[in-house]
Amino acid sequence: MPEFRQNLATKEWVIIAPERAKRPSYSSRKKKKIILPEYEKCCPFCPGNSSEKDPAVFAVSEAGRWLLRVVPNKYAALLPEISPIRKRIANFLKVEGFGVAEVVIETREHNLTIATMDVSGVRRVILSYKERYEELMKKEGLDLITVFRNYGPLAGTSLAHPHSQIIATPIVPLWFRNQIEEARRYCDDTGRCVYCDIIENELKFNERIVMETEHFVVFEPYASKSPYETWILPKLHNSSFRHISDREISDLAPTLQNALIRLHNAVDNLNYNYFIRSAPIGDDTVEHYHWHIQIQPRITTPAGFELGSGIYINTTPPEEAARILRGQM
Amino acid sequence: MPEFRQNLATKEWVIIAPERAKRPSYSSRKKKKIILPEYEKCCPFCPGNSSEKDPAVFAVSEAGRWLLRVVPNKYAALLPEISPIRKRIANFLKVEGFGVAEVVIETREHNLTIATMDVSGVRRVILSYKERYEELMKKEGLDLITVFRNYGPLAGTSLAHPHSQIIATPIVPLWFRNQIEEARRYCDDTGRCVYCDIIENELKFNERIVMETEHFVVFEPYASKSPYETWILPKLHNSSFRHISDREISDLAPTLQNALIRLHNAVDNLNYNYFIRSAPIGDDTVEHYHWHIQIQPRITTPAGFELGSGIYINTTPPEEAARILRGQM
Repeated sequence: MPEFRQNLATKEWVIIAPERAKRPSYSSRKKKKIILPEYEKCCPFCPGNSSEKDPAVFAVSEAGRWLLRVVPNKYAALLPEISPIRKRIANFLKVEGFGVAEVVIETREHNLTIATMDVSGVRRVILSYKERYEELMKKEGLDLITVFRNYGPLAGTSLAHPHSQIIATPIVPLWFRNQIEEARRYCDDTGRCVYCDIIENELKFNERIVMETEHFVVFEPYASKSPYETWILPKLHNSSFRHISDREISDLAPTLQNALIRLHNAVDNLNYNYFIRSAPIGDDTVEHYHWHIQIQPRITTPAGFELGSGIYINTTPPEEAARILRGQM
Repeated sequence: MPEFRQNLATKEWVIIAPERAKRPSYSSRKKKKIILPEYEKCCPFCPGNSSEKDPAVFAVSEAGRWLLRVVPNKYAALLPEISPIRKRIANFLKVEGFGVAEVVIETREHNLTIATMDVSGVRRVILSYKERYEELMKKEGLDLITVFRNYGPLAGTSLAHPHSQIIATPIVPLWFRNQIEEARRYCDDTGRCVYCDIIENELKFNERIVMETEHFVVFEPYASKSPYETWILPKLHNSSFRHISDREISDLAPTLQNALIRLHNAVDNLNYNYFIRSAPIGDDTVEHYHWHIQIQPRITTPAGFELGSGIYINTTPPEEAARILRGQM
């Protein structure tokens, strides 16, 4: 029996419909495994190649060799050196493309990823996110910082070398404003953070939990938009990622890696995006928002139903996904 | 120079960044042309095949042969015969998957599409949309009817036979509620429908118009989310598609076909979704919403930037897309 479910935090409805998995398929996903080399001559991010000429805004080095570099995105859709003034001609409103776009080159090795690199490497990646987040908060005119990672062509990666991205924009999109407003309303009604309540309920019902660590809960949301959508919520309430402590980072590194290993094991040819959802810069310390990581495997193609109705159909109930992911280690 | 632009009606921001088109590509779209036969033995929608056993909820026939059939979606994520009662367990809210999902089998021929069928066939398709829309409005418990079409595997089609889909849900998703609320606010402020104002401005500036007919304006929105996003707006203000008149339908058929032919000519291996955006059933006659068709070519893969920030990057300015589309006939 299909059912609509509402995500308590985002107020988004989805349809959980396992029966749909039986429908005929027009084309099937290619499962060709690509074996990458440790070094790729044409890769701009590999050591000694073109990106090394770009000055790093942040780097970690050891014995004269870089281990991680953060550089401006060469193909940025945003430019840091222009003025974020809104202009209106008739009813057409625009702002020049002010903002910051950076790339975190996570490691020297072309063929690693978060799931396969040393856990100290994952820790370094998270530390670099925090360093840049704090630095970008100081720049005038920016309202929102988003850290994300694209893995695989179905997730929109244009380069295979392990990298994350950081963007900072002078705009908070309407959907995010509305989600924050919904969370504020919940807080007004109940006196509690909706995400804190979700953690409490998920742990209590224990149907969708993938793993729990000292500082984090990894689970499949009740109203998962697509198969294997996975959230990592910090137990400690903070609206902004920039408040993450060193102890939390040391816990998050193996937790994030572990979650991704489980996903790689459960899903053939996994492609994914992950995002760090964090409050807008001005809402840095609010009671009603709670930063977290959202991992979105790219398994299904949103079609007219999803784009048209705005309601996602998920053929894998999150309870089943959680059970499979728990069995993967 | 990249720029942020805001869609006046939806309040969504996009980034128009033609420079981004130069970035290196990880994989390229396959351009293999598939030649389809007029009849396909394994296609459930072809004449004489399995779908003919399903009773039609609407059909057009001629000389004892059907020309168009509307049937219940066999792999529906929604079921019409259950009760739309909301249930809450702790903080988890759900509704059984009540709703209607139908398929419009647009023609007998497996290898036609809106762009290639006879214009009388397109008219028949639009008439069937209206027939079903009016019928579904009468069914209790439904709040929103969405008509859409998926063309090509990148748009999520699971079957090649020309078909559209109609879904009716007991839920209006939050993003749509918010868009309608924005339109209402505009109407409160100005006393005018924001879509009527968009038509007026687009015709006046004449930079993004693809074509104009007696009853419709086809244009590339100022803040197009992706290359070649195309809107067809009726000049006559009506909040709901169900008010479309026979004269408008006779004009819309060649207009929709013409717009799609231009898109097919401009874009190699075009895949698209189109949606009829229409007010929720309860807002059937409001002043502030204005039904329209949105055609969304599936050219780019939304990556972490788009999914993470909610801001779409479009590498083809709508002014350029409109110029190219104007030159296609």
